[in-house]
Amino acid sequence: MALNLTQKLIRSRVVEGDPVPGAEIALKVDQVLLQDVLGVLAMLEFEAMGLDRVRVGLAAQYVDHNLVQTDHMNADEHLFLRSACQRFGVWYSRPGNGISHPVHFARFGKPGDVLVGSDSHTPAAGAMGMLAFGAGGADVALAMAGEPLRLRMPRVRGIRLTGALPDWVSAKDVVLAMLRRHGTEGGVGWIFEYHGPGLACLSAMDRHVIANMGAEMGCTTTVFPADDAVRDYLRSEGREGDFTAFTADPGAAYDAEEEIDLSALEPLIALPSSPGNVVSVREAAGREIYQAYIGSSANPGYRDFAVVAHTVRGRVAHDRVSLDINPSSRQVLENLAAEGLVGDLVAAGARLHQAGCNGCIGMGQAPATGRISLRTVPRNFPGRSGTREDSVYLCSPETAAASALTGVITDPRTLGMPYPRVAPPAKPRVNASMLVPPLPAAESNVVRLEKTENIASIPALGAVPDTLVLPVALKVGDDISTDDIVPAGNRVMPYWSNIPRLCGFMYGGVDAEYPTRARAALAAGGHAIVAGNNYGQGSSRENAALAPRHLGLRVVLARSFARIHWQNLINFGVVPLTFADPADHDRLTRGETLRFEGLHAALRAGPEVAATRADGTTVRLRHALSPRQVELLLAGGVINWLRDRLAA
Amino acid sequence: MALNLTQKLIRSRVVEGDPVPGAEIALKVDQVLLQDVLGVLAMLEFEAMGLDRVRVGLAAQYVDHNLVQTDHMNADEHLFLRSACQRFGVWYSRPGNGISHPVHFARFGKPGDVLVGSDSHTPAAGAMGMLAFGAGGADVALAMAGEPLRLRMPRVRGIRLTGALPDWVSAKDVVLAMLRRHGTEGGVGWIFEYHGPGLACLSAMDRHVIANMGAEMGCTTTVFPADDAVRDYLRSEGREGDFTAFTADPGAAYDAEEEIDLSALEPLIALPSSPGNVVSVREAAGREIYQAYIGSSANPGYRDFAVVAHTVRGRVAHDRVSLDINPSSRQVLENLAAEGLVGDLVAAGARLHQAGCNGCIGMGQAPATGRISLRTVPRNFPGRSGTREDSVYLCSPETAAASALTGVITDPRTLGMPYPRVAPPAKPRVNASMLVPPLPAAESNVVRLEKTENIASIPALGAVPDTLVLPVALKVGDDISTDDIVPAGNRVMPYWSNIPRLCGFMYGGVDAEYPTRARAALAAGGHAIVAGNNYGQGSSRENAALAPRHLGLRVVLARSFARIHWQNLINFGVVPLTFADPADHDRLTRGETLRFEGLHAALRAGPEVAATRADGTTVRLRHALSPRQVELLLAGGVINWLRDRLAA
Repeated sequence: MALNLTQKLIRSRVVEGDPVPGAEIALKVDQVLLQDVLGVLAMLEFEAMGLDRVRVGLAAQYVDHNLVQTDHMNADEHLFLRSACQRFGVWYSRPGNGISHPVHFARFGKPGDVLVGSDSHTPAAGAMGMLAFGAGGADVALAMAGEPLRLRMPRVRGIRLTGALPDWVSAKDVVLAMLRRHGTEGGVGWIFEYHGPGLACLSAMDRHVIANMGAEMGCTTTVFPADDAVRDYLRSEGREGDFTAFTADPGAAYDAEEEIDLSALEPLIALPSSPGNVVSVREAAGREIYQAYIGSSANPGYRDFAVVAHTVRGRVAHDRVSLDINPSSRQVLENLAAEGLVGDLVAAGARLHQAGCNGCIGMGQAPATGRISLRTVPRNFPGRSGTREDSVYLCSPETAAASALTGVITDPRTLGMPYPRVAPPAKPRVNASMLVPPLPAAESNVVRLEKTENIASIPALGAVPDTLVLPVALKVGDDISTDDIVPAGNRVMPYWSNIPRLCGFMYGGVDAEYPTRARAALAAGGHAIVAGNNYGQGSSRENAALAPRHLGLRVVLARSFARIHWQNLINFGVVPLTFADPADHDRLTRGETLRFEGLHAALRAGPEVAATRADGTTVRLRHALSPRQVELLLAGGVINWLRDRLAA
Repeated sequence: MALNLTQKLIRSRVVEGDPVPGAEIALKVDQVLLQDVLGVLAMLEFEAMGLDRVRVGLAAQYVDHNLVQTDHMNADEHLFLRSACQRFGVWYSRPGNGISHPVHFARFGKPGDVLVGSDSHTPAAGAMGMLAFGAGGADVALAMAGEPLRLRMPRVRGIRLTGALPDWVSAKDVVLAMLRRHGTEGGVGWIFEYHGPGLACLSAMDRHVIANMGAEMGCTTTVFPADDAVRDYLRSEGREGDFTAFTADPGAAYDAEEEIDLSALEPLIALPSSPGNVVSVREAAGREIYQAYIGSSANPGYRDFAVVAHTVRGRVAHDRVSLDINPSSRQVLENLAAEGLVGDLVAAGARLHQAGCNGCIGMGQAPATGRISLRTVPRNFPGRSGTREDSVYLCSPETAAASALTGVITDPRTLGMPYPRVAPPAKPRVNASMLVPPLPAAESNVVRLEKTENIASIPALGAVPDTLVLPVALKVGDDISTDDIVPAGNRVMPYWSNIPRLCGFMYGGVDAEYPTRARAALAAGGHAIVAGNNYGQGSSRENAALAPRHLGLRVVLARSFARIHWQNLINFGVVPLTFADPADHDRLTRGETLRFEGLHAALRAGPEVAATRADGTTVRLRHALSPRQVELLLAGGVINWLRDRLAA
């Protein structure tokens, strides 16, 4: 039988279960990636599991989010992470070395490997024929402990690419075209696998752009073949020896199929405030902009910056526009410098920032109130830029550069200059000196973790009671993101690993009184949340489950869940249920009380769970937990579960 | 009579008074410099004075402090400043174009001119034979209104330089040697004028380093001759036509004289937490460091970054060290890029930040708690780095680079490599494209100021009552800096122009209950502060007078005042008095009440003012106000005074 690439990759790593859509499977994990704001919790969880040293082939910790350092907290956290890497046998990518995804891709990416990362954009590594999954920190800590990754086998959508990209159209426009087709939920339960002759015009880093933003459609992950473009890329990184070809079998089938004619694409842009609001740049052209922002894991390649440098060379950004350049990695910056392009960018008025996530996650570079910011980043959820009343548009580097010059949203094809097709540097520079290797076990055993007053221990979580009587402390609508639940930005992110302190910020932009109501219900047994569709979309931040749990969250009733957040709820002992009748969402009100009885037996018995309202009527609910997940949930979550297993 | 350079420069601009030490003189102002965090208030004051357009030859507004943009406030403020520049006829240096001092020096510096700037490091421009004074924003607004600058004629100290700097010793070591001699108060009431054959080894930008940190000794300003080195510098900036030679007459005398043999200097370092704590690097060598930080107006030249690049080339910063590079200006960064040095820095692990003040003022790059940060910045007051329990050392770029490589404080002479003497770029790049010229009056008249909810109007201030009964709401010791009074950093700086909001942060690091006590006394007529020596040293921030005044501050009783803060108190109607018997400082206690009667007559009559304590005893006090200053003070400050004058 002809297999698609996803099937081949999964079969090579499956250790439990039958990989048919919907079945729970377990995959051997080869590599683990941690970023800083979610890595601290993962390290604390690993410690809480009682382990000494990672039991996975490769684990790497990146410091890329908390870089602004407006007080001691970021810097103190870096010292903690450095000590945790030394203690547990983890690579340490120093602050300023760059964003986890492109740096990991360049140094450790390996076709055929399974990668689990504590960041929702981890699937970017699928660009080189890896199976790369974003997960909550607890799942990453489990992988560090040598556990396989468990997930429900998704369906596989084959996207056949034909034609070649026209001038001024690039990879970002491809993934925006997919977002226009599928919206922000169209990938839920799917792996997107790209194939076809159109791949020939996409470099490995171009594919990284597309795989990265598969997360914005809710995809479990995205997969590209490991072909000559990947070989070329690994050669440029001095790692051709890590290349193995992986492609779909000829004639392989998919659970769904579609096609994109690349030659028919034009520059696209996502309007505020969802990556799914995609229109052509033509339709938005002429609006005054405040900012053009180049960078992030969604346009991380040398090419993405070089095309901007060539476009703005010899000209100056419009005097209303802040042209912000956020290099994705130190190595990319070094190559831009070697090719003379840093000078071109700076001469054109660029504000050149250190390599890292920066403004993509609200750590600096926030735009003025209500003014348009054009960004090459993956997300434009409201307020994520750091500015509460923001107006963020997502686009390609070409569109951002053209608009920086004119001061208004501009289709780059109207610039009237030849398209600068960027060749890779003739002698690409490779520099791994800011990646500190793990210590040998003999040395690591004596390292002490450098904790500070801001790095609290993980709060202990009790088992799930059999009877729950819960007020609905919050009712929200569709598409609540984890950015809504746990705000990002410089004000809150330094506390992301300090759960007791973080609790006060929960849902700050949605309903700032939630923490107060939740605390009021804590002594009586906690509370429930009622939500709409796609609850918990976006970032993989597990504190979006852990902090509400610490405030007494016991059950979430939603129309549907985003995958990673659903898993994070389970990992911290919160019961995720969906409505049998979606209209019940509208019937429930904030403040009313729901009663669950015989919950243990109901969860174990099968999908149906019932809640009783104060008026005696019943709300019919369902769960989608596997038997293993039910037990893990009832134990109070993954830390308790693994600790019990290791003790047994 | 042979005149020293200071005398010659002052005589060429004096419009009132006789320039003998101690006499009040008025100088015609040629140029005005504003930075962003103090420029907003200056613009609001200019507006409050009822004026339409600047009446000074040249005014330039720089956006260099509030660059982090972790929320909308910085960006909104930039839009306000841009509109104010358009409205009032001011040059606008866009965010990211660099620190005011080196950018102004490069583009507008002109030997013989008088410059007034809303920043205490404005005297840096004295490096090219200008008379450059730091002042509060209200004084700058007065200069913008065409008023002359009024000051007491200082004494002039002649510093004769001989010899030449040895390898690995540079301009920062010269000014640290001066700080070792004179401490942080030794310059109060003085202008320091450098001369002698040793000047031959100091470029204009080297002299900028020395003139800049004259502020740390309390100097009124610092003066260097306009000689061939200045001509060379202006030629490299494409402005040789702006050069005029200015030097002291042969045989000129000074009020005091001293000498430095440059060839006898060695690398020096200021220990925490005062620029006056200077020892040799040898004495501090071996201590583990967390950070090496290169940048700021106190080491802003191309050379200062290039020497670091040459030192670290081909090596990597120690894995414990954060090597932070903060370019002083976009033009310096462009030149570093053109010479291939950006690549060297980045390859060595540098975190390259946008051009601006950045961590020097706690806007990012804050060090870890208690860990040593080596910085080339001018000040290491406690907490100014953004980290409350910081440990900041001040040193040369050479010392910082050497220590970055070894991970411990290192005398660069022990590196065992040849000293990289840096030549200027063969073809220096000049780029003024981020400096937006003033609009013509016909266009500026229709521009509206883009105010936001965070840019409050200047609170109206009443006249000084004739009788005051004031509780002592705060008692502090010696060397309280304006950083102590108004905290810097990202948490507070966005509110620096919002006086009602800023009040709650006053004295946050010294006595956080002060605002509460001050507010409690507000209805009964306000309060007094008792202070030690050198009260209000450091930054020129006038909100350190205006915000306490808004909280009801009426009188400050101190052993001595720093010059700019003293002037700022007067400008906002706060009476600054010194103790006739310094021991009275120790006798007074917080909470006790002081009564002033017949204050108007006493201030007008002469230096003696008396306060009566609750037990009936008298505290003898003095003021040093000129008759003009008494009237300005009694009117409630400079805004009322000028508005009355313009109306009359």
